[in-house]
Amino acid sequence: MEYYSSHINKLIEQLSHLPGIGAKSAQRLAFHIMNMPKDQVEQLTSSITGARENVQYCKCCCTLTDREICPICSNDKRDHSVIMVVENTRDLAAYEKTGKFDGVYHVLHGAISPMLGIGPDDIKLKELMQRLAKDEVKEVIIATNSSLEGETTAMYISKLIKPTGIKVSRIASGVPVGGDLEYIDEVTLLRALEGRVEL
Amino acid sequence: MEYYSSHINKLIEQLSHLPGIGAKSAQRLAFHIMNMPKDQVEQLTSSITGARENVQYCKCCCTLTDREICPICSNDKRDHSVIMVVENTRDLAAYEKTGKFDGVYHVLHGAISPMLGIGPDDIKLKELMQRLAKDEVKEVIIATNSSLEGETTAMYISKLIKPTGIKVSRIASGVPVGGDLEYIDEVTLLRALEGRVEL
Repeated sequence: MEYYSSHINKLIEQLSHLPGIGAKSAQRLAFHIMNMPKDQVEQLTSSITGARENVQYCKCCCTLTDREICPICSNDKRDHSVIMVVENTRDLAAYEKTGKFDGVYHVLHGAISPMLGIGPDDIKLKELMQRLAKDEVKEVIIATNSSLEGETTAMYISKLIKPTGIKVSRIASGVPVGGDLEYIDEVTLLRALEGRVEL
Repeated sequence: MEYYSSHINKLIEQLSHLPGIGAKSAQRLAFHIMNMPKDQVEQLTSSITGARENVQYCKCCCTLTDREICPICSNDKRDHSVIMVVENTRDLAAYEKTGKFDGVYHVLHGAISPMLGIGPDDIKLKELMQRLAKDEVKEVIIATNSSLEGETTAMYISKLIKPTGIKVSRIASGVPVGGDLEYIDEVTLLRALEGRVEL
């Protein structure tokens, strides 16, 4: 792309490596950045560097945080005997937004996927088992995604934990609230039927 | 958003200011960046800073470049008597990709828009008129977008240049190549009819 200068090309290339950013979006972003005031550009780059340098895994639940122990794990008001297992920090945030769960979390940073070659050792499962051996835990709620990988991970974890006698549960699958049955896939409809509860 | 650490929140906020990046995409990008190797993050930030610090307007055609005079303006093999006027550097690149235009460009960095309060003084029009007064120019091809703003700008420029005796032309509007008439808007269809050429 000789019609752009090397600095512009380099920026476009770097931006196009980000997820969900194609060639056209990368161009648009690059020209937007070049027209931004210098102090705003400085804020952008320093926030990138700041996040990357300061954010680490919580020593307890493995979520991304800027402290050694994250605010949730270090909060005495939370119920530390109930652990919700999620695939990533965004899923943790999704449940936190509901404001209705007062237990703690464990973030796996992935899900088991034989297709992608991701095994149990590639996710933060060892750390979960160490927690269970050390802490007083009454229940582990598995809240991995309702995808093939999420289900595989849920099955694997439940088999691993069952022998310890700790209660293991799985969040319900079914029709989303406000969802129109007509537009929902068959697997979800069958799950909703299987999981029906008495009224 | 207390469930994320302050560094993560700051990064998400900064990213969500970029065009076409909503709250969800900003979260996804932020977590991607936090999982990137440090040297890749460094490359990303340095390319942002590098582009912003080194890229300037070409002294001749006003395109974004890292030299005082851009490679196109300093190329003796190009026909400097034909100037194509475009709205921005991406439009210049679009015509350069065709490889069929051997004149030079002038980049306006915008279009006249009374709605958005952008007047003739807010785009690089003065610079174009200075070029026309100074250089030997035979033709000015106006290649602003086929939008209301682009057309307004084209009309304005043509009225400004006509008295100087320099030839002014406008790129053709019509049905795009490979376009299916059925799906093309009425205005385009009318333009294509008006602009019909004898075979």
